[in-house]
Amino acid sequence: MSFLRRDPITGRWVINTDRTRDKYPSLIEMEELTKKEICPFCEGNETYTPSEVFALRNEGSEKDKPGWQVRVVPNISPALRVELELERRAELMYDLMNAVGAHEIIIETPEHVPNLADLEISQIQKVLEAYKQRILDLKKDKRFRSVAIFKNHGERVGSLRIKHTHSQLIALSITPKSLKEELKGAKEYFDYKERCVYCDIIRQELSTKKRIVATNPHFIALCPFASRFTHEVWILPKKHSVDFEQIDEELAGSLAGLLKEVLLRLKILLDDPPYNYILHTGPNRTHRRGGAWKTLDEDYHWHIEIMPCYTRIDGFEWGTGFYIDSTTPEKAAENLRKVKI
Amino acid sequence: MSFLRRDPITGRWVINTDRTRDKYPSLIEMEELTKKEICPFCEGNETYTPSEVFALRNEGSEKDKPGWQVRVVPNISPALRVELELERRAELMYDLMNAVGAHEIIIETPEHVPNLADLEISQIQKVLEAYKQRILDLKKDKRFRSVAIFKNHGERVGSLRIKHTHSQLIALSITPKSLKEELKGAKEYFDYKERCVYCDIIRQELSTKKRIVATNPHFIALCPFASRFTHEVWILPKKHSVDFEQIDEELAGSLAGLLKEVLLRLKILLDDPPYNYILHTGPNRTHRRGGAWKTLDEDYHWHIEIMPCYTRIDGFEWGTGFYIDSTTPEKAAENLRKVKI
Repeated sequence: MSFLRRDPITGRWVINTDRTRDKYPSLIEMEELTKKEICPFCEGNETYTPSEVFALRNEGSEKDKPGWQVRVVPNISPALRVELELERRAELMYDLMNAVGAHEIIIETPEHVPNLADLEISQIQKVLEAYKQRILDLKKDKRFRSVAIFKNHGERVGSLRIKHTHSQLIALSITPKSLKEELKGAKEYFDYKERCVYCDIIRQELSTKKRIVATNPHFIALCPFASRFTHEVWILPKKHSVDFEQIDEELAGSLAGLLKEVLLRLKILLDDPPYNYILHTGPNRTHRRGGAWKTLDEDYHWHIEIMPCYTRIDGFEWGTGFYIDSTTPEKAAENLRKVKI
Repeated sequence: MSFLRRDPITGRWVINTDRTRDKYPSLIEMEELTKKEICPFCEGNETYTPSEVFALRNEGSEKDKPGWQVRVVPNISPALRVELELERRAELMYDLMNAVGAHEIIIETPEHVPNLADLEISQIQKVLEAYKQRILDLKKDKRFRSVAIFKNHGERVGSLRIKHTHSQLIALSITPKSLKEELKGAKEYFDYKERCVYCDIIRQELSTKKRIVATNPHFIALCPFASRFTHEVWILPKKHSVDFEQIDEELAGSLAGLLKEVLLRLKILLDDPPYNYILHTGPNRTHRRGGAWKTLDEDYHWHIEIMPCYTRIDGFEWGTGFYIDSTTPEKAAENLRKVKI
């Protein structure tokens, strides 16, 4: 049984789970598949994953059968469970909650392609459509305060990772700390200036140009002024918008193009580095308590943060939340702009 | 020229530096030494490091010559510089500061021993004495709001790491985010309960016992209730104390013994894993603004956080500040207690 536990000093929530092989025979099965070079995410291998919760399918094709373009399935060893009742309780001075939530895998293509950067723009747009549909669906559930979508690309030491491009989704009964900090910061800025801090950043970056990686009519990709990682890139919609899932078809096509361009630039410049990205979208405002913050339309601005992780991360960064980046974002943006794609 | 830059949304500070080889020929020199298997931290090789700022030395021995037990030198490619004037300025909507600070290496033994766990308790006590003296000295400098000491032990992919046990010290003109969060959390708890949150945790853990790794008359080692990492361990003084550097000889000896015990238990249980630890001590209260928080004697409780990093860290943790730990701290503490040392 997994629980969400709250650190009594900082208020940081963690999931303490017990994902040992004994409890998840499916993990052993996954390792077996890997040995046999069977990819559970390829078209035709649908029986190796849990039953799909969403798919973009060819007309007439059947659920959990071939004939899909993007497929979403529950994680095989989920850290969170949808079927639980939300229950908060104390253990002496500590606070905990049962681990209610959703943990899903978005399989981004039926073909065995490792990097999202190598998909067609039209296929990336379908991936974004799947993100949108899953967020819309999960935000209907009032138990969930936030939905995060993230991608881990490339090899890391010690991790069993399926090399078929996919993202993960987590819906949580809490607001994760970093989203809370962004919401708080954006709200304070708005209260003071009556302008969105992200909109101000976009305006300023478009005028100084020195940290811009690429733009198109609807989106901007930039190396943030206070980059934590070398070649960190954020993609933001130019027009103010709190929730990613409000994106329409035109915007999704435009975002797919820019996302592909940024990922390709990183791939070429850094020789296919491992990378992570996170889609930061607004909290679930249908939540009965309005989420941790009563977020209004002006208080947040959705965006994607892309972090190449070829540099080492040391204890210092972990322990202090203070980052040392061995280059400047101006230089990083210049490097990325110069890449011929 | 390095700068501290502030993220305009979350207030997170980063150092953006330019530590390329061109600017630091010393880094190439270090690589050459490594190739020749010359360790710059071993006794007799003092000329390979910058001149020492502190050392515990045999009587009659000379500065930067053999005859020391613990030696502290500036980092060869420092991210921060002591000799600068503190200057804050704006760049349009952004805030930056020149990178005033100290970045030092504490060489923990004259002999070529890779792991602090393998030193004698009396030698570890000398290391703690060096920590104390450097913190006391640097906190006299009113430009510095905080001093952090951290250790990265063991190999990480892509990092040039000298395998002679050492720690690093960073003195900063800001309060790092994680210390600020702890100070804020501890202060809020005190304002509400009129008790120190760390003291309450210690009392409760001593009574329930299930997350305790080891104790001695002065210190407690425990797996925290909301552990971020499997086998994460905190060491805290049982008696309330804000500043590590107030430690006396008896306490330092007691801490050295418990630190060695915990590191040995981790080494045996996890087969000499890479690990990080951070010493969290109170902010510099001689700072003219009293640091970011006017910390009073009751508002903080120094401690050491030890994080074995044999598990993978994914984009999700980075991006959300929400951690998934694949075991429980109760089980982790039990594993560590069972180790025969």
